[in-house]
Amino acid sequence: MSGWLVIAGLGPGDDALVTPEVSGALSGAQDVIGYIPYVARVPDRVGLTKHASDNRVELDRARHALTLAAAGRRVAVVSSGDPGVFAMASAVFEAVEAGDPAWRDLDIRVLPGITAMLAAAARAGAPLGHDFCAINLSDNLKPWPLIEKRLRLAAEADFVMAFYNPRSRSRPEGFARALEVLREACGDARPVIFARAVATPDERLTIVPLPECSPDMADMRTVVLIGSSQTRVIPRSGAPFVYTPRSVEP
Amino acid sequence: MSGWLVIAGLGPGDDALVTPEVSGALSGAQDVIGYIPYVARVPDRVGLTKHASDNRVELDRARHALTLAAAGRRVAVVSSGDPGVFAMASAVFEAVEAGDPAWRDLDIRVLPGITAMLAAAARAGAPLGHDFCAINLSDNLKPWPLIEKRLRLAAEADFVMAFYNPRSRSRPEGFARALEVLREACGDARPVIFARAVATPDERLTIVPLPECSPDMADMRTVVLIGSSQTRVIPRSGAPFVYTPRSVEP
Repeated sequence: MSGWLVIAGLGPGDDALVTPEVSGALSGAQDVIGYIPYVARVPDRVGLTKHASDNRVELDRARHALTLAAAGRRVAVVSSGDPGVFAMASAVFEAVEAGDPAWRDLDIRVLPGITAMLAAAARAGAPLGHDFCAINLSDNLKPWPLIEKRLRLAAEADFVMAFYNPRSRSRPEGFARALEVLREACGDARPVIFARAVATPDERLTIVPLPECSPDMADMRTVVLIGSSQTRVIPRSGAPFVYTPRSVEP
Repeated sequence: MSGWLVIAGLGPGDDALVTPEVSGALSGAQDVIGYIPYVARVPDRVGLTKHASDNRVELDRARHALTLAAAGRRVAVVSSGDPGVFAMASAVFEAVEAGDPAWRDLDIRVLPGITAMLAAAARAGAPLGHDFCAINLSDNLKPWPLIEKRLRLAAEADFVMAFYNPRSRSRPEGFARALEVLREACGDARPVIFARAVATPDERLTIVPLPECSPDMADMRTVVLIGSSQTRVIPRSGAPFVYTPRSVEP
């Protein structure tokens, strides 16, 4: 049996941000599996079967991929960004753990990619230059009290924060509550970066102080970065640079 | 004046993890500036001047790069991993803020790369599949009490944790103290991943429960990932898969 399964990160959108490792794996795959817009990014070619599925069927998709690889196929599951950060890799390993014991011995590899917060940070300057955390704000995946607890502890730790999925269609009020918690816990004018669709033609970067944030500044394609108490804004003729210094003085 | 300055991420070591964006910028640069082993990774060619410097001169290096770009040169500052994560991008913006006001209007771009924790996580499975934080353990850059406070708050938030620079040559005792704090704050057998020199010929991955960790398992080339209370280990015939599920049940 010569099948394999890679879980490959396509980066935020621009093909110039896809690693050669991922491009190489995709050119050797027989099956590509993933959410419709990500599968669409893989060029068609003879011998490649595309299996595009809608959002929220991650476990079905993972089992499908494992079944094909177990049958000897060369399979790529594609994610945007990095597959290990709020994306398909965890779903595949959940399916492995709960599934056919033979799946554990398949050739499964995760191929890293440029995750959205790194692309967003690069556009703004270097806001993630000191200790930071990444939180998925979708409360489809965890109870709201846990999200609120993490926001308060992250503020107390003075982490820079990166939020994925700040505003879901099904529960748009979550992000408004997150902003309220942050205003209470941070209590000053930290810079906030709304980075929408970075590295795509729809890219838009907005930098505003925390008190001026409103929930409608984020949508499902936005990553939000909240500066720490140390984060600096450098005014200039264009959009300012935002960075967090490497050091904290004792 | 047509100079520019890119701060480019070379990824963890393997050229297959360098983005085409970074390769393209390097092929157009006239000057490459950085720490000796990273500059050595850029191929020599006619018209390219390499400026390699030792560690711990980040600000000098940044000012040098800005001076060259201001004089009209096309300059690449190279970092391993992602330049925005505990690497050169913050140093450049520190130099911009404190330096010649004309530097603010230079064409400065950060080109993201695969940061060490993403490469390490990919090798182990998907340990960063749920909320996580990244902490630079070097206490050259911040006072130890702040590091300890962040470790305790991160444990209370039940974040997966990624540690950069766990063990510096100058202060090897810091990581031992970090492990003590974690054992006290986490209190159970969380999986710990020591990922040394990932994506290089010296790569070594060690997965052990927290109580069995010893400080000498990390060196300056190691990234350490500490699982959350939810992180799972899937035994198999080879090295186990480690992943953190996407969801936390209410």
